[in-house]
Amino acid sequence: MDLRDWIRDVPDFPKPGILFKDITPLLQNHEAMTFAFDQMAGLFKGQPVDLVVGIESRGFIFGAPLADRLGAGFVPIRKVGKLPYSTIFEEYDLEYGTNKIEIHEDAIKPGQNVLIVDDLLATGGTVTAAANLVEKLGGKVQGMTFLIELRFLNGREKLSRFEVKSLVEY
Amino acid sequence: MDLRDWIRDVPDFPKPGILFKDITPLLQNHEAMTFAFDQMAGLFKGQPVDLVVGIESRGFIFGAPLADRLGAGFVPIRKVGKLPYSTIFEEYDLEYGTNKIEIHEDAIKPGQNVLIVDDLLATGGTVTAAANLVEKLGGKVQGMTFLIELRFLNGREKLSRFEVKSLVEY
Repeated sequence: MDLRDWIRDVPDFPKPGILFKDITPLLQNHEAMTFAFDQMAGLFKGQPVDLVVGIESRGFIFGAPLADRLGAGFVPIRKVGKLPYSTIFEEYDLEYGTNKIEIHEDAIKPGQNVLIVDDLLATGGTVTAAANLVEKLGGKVQGMTFLIELRFLNGREKLSRFEVKSLVEY
Repeated sequence: MDLRDWIRDVPDFPKPGILFKDITPLLQNHEAMTFAFDQMAGLFKGQPVDLVVGIESRGFIFGAPLADRLGAGFVPIRKVGKLPYSTIFEEYDLEYGTNKIEIHEDAIKPGQNVLIVDDLLATGGTVTAAANLVEKLGGKVQGMTFLIELRFLNGREKLSRFEVKSLVEY
């Protein structure tokens, strides 16, 4: 199955000049969706994964089924103000301004092996912040996996100390 | 397994006087998480479910694994401005002001059977709006399922024409 057949290009979203990769056709089709979940989980099969961290909110769609398949728990990383318990946060740069993401301070035990999951790797800003949060809590980043990687944005360069795997590259 | 053991009370979140049901301890534990997914899917096993609709963003954590288990596709309902393709929206009342949620206009084909999933049923405002979106697209709401139902908020009364099932009641 070529997953590209299930990913739709939407021009000028979220702003003019951006060609957005829309994964909703893929999710809508049971076979394409489960194929993607199976393939992403397969990339880390046999490696120790105690927890899968999903980044809000499309990362949740992939993170939970991957935790399911890998025998791991699931931990959400969220935008600031959404998690109810005590949190630590990490700030990172956007094109204009900054963004903050949070994790519960008791989400990861020191030494736990963590797989970070999101739908898309672009510049790598968000996932770098996510890795910092995991490491601040004493977790070991076992790897990172994405459905889609936009190679021309060179996010992978920022992540050279991690094992980074994606299913579909553009 | 008593899922209540894995749900934490957080007082005064998101505002003073609210006792928030925090499901992150449940998600963090693989056995409790998969037990919850299995039980929720089991409530609709044998019924026709073509699509599972998850409501942003905790609904995504349950929606994708349920679609996985029920042989269905997954469709996200999101806050306004997040979905890239053409959408329809539905507005609903909050305690102060209103909120809007959206669905892609091609997310559901007329006649498809849809299960709506979220983590929590409170007053039922969001899920009523979600059901309206499904029906506007010609879908049939086969049912609604929630991990948690806050019975004292009487959300179920608003939803009397639907089959509503939850795992844990308070």
